Amino acid sequence: MNSWAIQQHPSTPDQARPPAPAAAPALGRDLHLDLTVRRTAGLGLRAALEDALREATADGSLAPGTRLPSSRALAADLDIARNTVAEAYAQLAAEGWLVSRQGSGTTVADRAPTRRPGPVPRPAPEAAIRYDFRPGRPDLDLFPRAAWLAATRRALARAPRDALGYSTSLGRYESRRALADYLGRVRGVRADPERILLCSGFAQGLALLGAELHARGTGPVAVESYGLRVHRELLEAAGPTTVPLPVDADGARTDLLPTDGTSAVLLTPAHQFPTGTPLHPARRAAALDWARATGGLVIEDDYDGEFRYDRQPVGAMQALDPERVVYAGTASKSLAPGLRLGWLVLPEDLVAPLAARKARADGQSSVLEQLALAELIESGGYDRQVRRARLHYRRRRDRLVAALATAAPRVQVSGIAAGLHALLRLPAGRTSEPDLQEQALQQGLALDVLSRFRHPLAEPDGLPPSLVIGFGTPPEHAFQRGLDVLGELLAANC
Amino acid sequence: MNSWAIQQHPSTPDQARPPAPAAAPALGRDLHLDLTVRRTAGLGLRAALEDALREATADGSLAPGTRLPSSRALAADLDIARNTVAEAYAQLAAEGWLVSRQGSGTTVADRAPTRRPGPVPRPAPEAAIRYDFRPGRPDLDLFPRAAWLAATRRALARAPRDALGYSTSLGRYESRRALADYLGRVRGVRADPERILLCSGFAQGLALLGAELHARGTGPVAVESYGLRVHRELLEAAGPTTVPLPVDADGARTDLLPTDGTSAVLLTPAHQFPTGTPLHPARRAAALDWARATGGLVIEDDYDGEFRYDRQPVGAMQALDPERVVYAGTASKSLAPGLRLGWLVLPEDLVAPLAARKARADGQSSVLEQLALAELIESGGYDRQVRRARLHYRRRRDRLVAALATAAPRVQVSGIAAGLHALLRLPAGRTSEPDLQEQALQQGLALDVLSRFRHPLAEPDGLPPSLVIGFGTPPEHAFQRGLDVLGELLAANC
Repeated sequence: MNSWAIQQHPSTPDQARPPAPAAAPALGRDLHLDLTVRRTAGLGLRAALEDALREATADGSLAPGTRLPSSRALAADLDIARNTVAEAYAQLAAEGWLVSRQGSGTTVADRAPTRRPGPVPRPAPEAAIRYDFRPGRPDLDLFPRAAWLAATRRALARAPRDALGYSTSLGRYESRRALADYLGRVRGVRADPERILLCSGFAQGLALLGAELHARGTGPVAVESYGLRVHRELLEAAGPTTVPLPVDADGARTDLLPTDGTSAVLLTPAHQFPTGTPLHPARRAAALDWARATGGLVIEDDYDGEFRYDRQPVGAMQALDPERVVYAGTASKSLAPGLRLGWLVLPEDLVAPLAARKARADGQSSVLEQLALAELIESGGYDRQVRRARLHYRRRRDRLVAALATAAPRVQVSGIAAGLHALLRLPAGRTSEPDLQEQALQQGLALDVLSRFRHPLAEPDGLPPSLVIGFGTPPEHAFQRGLDVLGELLAANC
Repeated sequence: MNSWAIQQHPSTPDQARPPAPAAAPALGRDLHLDLTVRRTAGLGLRAALEDALREATADGSLAPGTRLPSSRALAADLDIARNTVAEAYAQLAAEGWLVSRQGSGTTVADRAPTRRPGPVPRPAPEAAIRYDFRPGRPDLDLFPRAAWLAATRRALARAPRDALGYSTSLGRYESRRALADYLGRVRGVRADPERILLCSGFAQGLALLGAELHARGTGPVAVESYGLRVHRELLEAAGPTTVPLPVDADGARTDLLPTDGTSAVLLTPAHQFPTGTPLHPARRAAALDWARATGGLVIEDDYDGEFRYDRQPVGAMQALDPERVVYAGTASKSLAPGLRLGWLVLPEDLVAPLAARKARADGQSSVLEQLALAELIESGGYDRQVRRARLHYRRRRDRLVAALATAAPRVQVSGIAAGLHALLRLPAGRTSEPDLQEQALQQGLALDVLSRFRHPLAEPDGLPPSLVIGFGTPPEHAFQRGLDVLGELLAANC
């Protein structure tokens, strides 16, 4: 019984003749449906029959109005129990594929034929990138798979029953408590667990903040004139417009923050992205003065605050005024972006509104990963991971600096006291950003250029053309060869 | 060296005298800061000193303008290296706490004192609920911790490097492929992996759909006149208003769907929530006819489609017209809500817009849990879990029905061919919903009442007062006693 056939009905009209409108047309051709494949795939006999009928109905092989054989006839045809066929017909009628009417048998429901959905074409792969030096991504080989699995095991062993259910949108309390301790100890953040919101990466945190700011007023959000475009887009999609704040060697010009209704400023105080300078103490003070004078909010994006090499990390500015500053952190650099673990430490008056927005966005973040993070922090594994990663990136930075000093001494490397990327200032007049980027790509080397991070409304500034090199991104096996390619490229162009 | 003291400065002004505005006031009292606690907590000497100074500055113990001892003097005081103090001062200056000026020493930065953020009061616990029979939640003791850990282990072992990074906002392809196979096999969904969006529970999927509908036009979304309030709220927060569609014994009255601009209809075809009836085939057809005639969208909330007891599950209506129906599913019932695993199967023209909205909401969902789900599905563990859970809930349902037949034969139990909840219709005129709910709560029994699920704009209907009982919710040890309490309550009131 590998296939079954619904025999052509004796009264089938010729294809040239239009079917009678009232009478249900019967099957126009033999219909072979392979049940074997379905049974091999584990379906029971009735389920296989249903599936075959469903597909034939959906793809038009069984046209609307087609009258099916009686269950008795089909059962005899297939040498199976009549009840099996009757049940399959009933099931498909319940689902809307067939119509069973007392006295007139079973017909295919009268509905427009549906073409089987074609596959959506998958996007073409990126041009072959052998050396990925684009910034913003950690070395994913550093992700501590064994430690994370162990933390997950402990989390699963210890999680109370209710942890697996719906909880407060802020996140599990034990995770917020572990984070509060960690952030206080390592980043100097004044973090009460009750003010922490666990979110799906900083991306979600910023989107929620943007929506809340928009709901409170129409003022724009000031952003650094160089920064991640995705952050501007997240804010703008949430409502607020963004206005650029110039950046110089001391970081963002917070002394120029507009007092005419700007609702918030997004800063990267520990390590300006992408120029790499820390925010000068006077600029920190200016931002807080502005916040106090205008009621504005400072959003502190501490995306790589744990990775400082030449001295200890600059503490978070949130502690200077926890009621004016939202501290935003993430495990995307220390662990992996794919975990989507981010957190906001909120001023008191933002806790309830942000919790409500998080609830409306997705209820809450995934619990098990929150709990695994807490286990990792409390076991000391997170600190070990940060130390290990810091050493790794420091060594890479040193190799980058050494390679460029030899190959391209005219290129000035900056922004490397911290973080996973460097700014390479190109000597004036020798080459252009797009030209160098294109040449690099032809050799399989992906990198970024400073102008790509520029706010479209930014005033002209004196910053020379520069490359932005993410030295954390490539896997180890590609790093040295990538450095060689980069060195050759710069030697030839600078 | 358990604590250190900054001695009172000889020139400290008397407290009664106002400080000279130009000269920095020195310390007004002995200041004892405990370094031991900090060192025991694992901080190095310099870090402990910094932390103590930071806290004293933040809480006002060291007031703005206070001049600190020279690094030489403090080092002698503390019997530590002068360099340690100098580095601590430099660090705190970089962070904005202190100001170091050539020739005038180090003073506390001039800024408004910040009160230490007080703890936000935690919400009071719910009144003691011993028997939780509220619907919408699975028995969390069924969560297969060992199988989930094993799936996570396999996912971690197999995940390629790039899986841990940023990926398409739709979700990992291998997870969408596993889901497409599963949904096709078990729910009859026509699911191409390229049309699946993995989201953070159905909540996020619905919020994203609501925002997309709102961006496309101003039409309201029709919802069943009885349903989850949180779904209405999610839609309305995203933009669209909602209008109620009456529900009767055949499910939602899709034959009454308005053709005047209603942009979509949210349905629970397999098992209307909370009345528990499947959508009649004619109503399925009417919904699709409406969608084709108006260009409207059908959102199929298949929240518990896998849990049908008396016959095989009614297949998803999505397969009847994949270009008009969004199929929405979740692992919240089969596994646990805390995982936040949900998925949408989208019409082709919604794939790109929804992927863009997901990207702007949070980038992508957590990768490891997606991959663990794929491992669980492909190993057959997910099917085993669903079968195990189905058997468990079926037994509970049978116990509920038996208990009520004995204790309260006048109460009519319905909606129990599927799912994790039952509708208990109360005999007319004997009691009221709020009264019964209040009596139940006094005995520690939480339950829901039908009117709570009613759309505020719904027309009067003939539905009698009813309880909505989630028999899946309580842990096993509370279930039997909870049934007894429920039975006694109904016997006394009905």
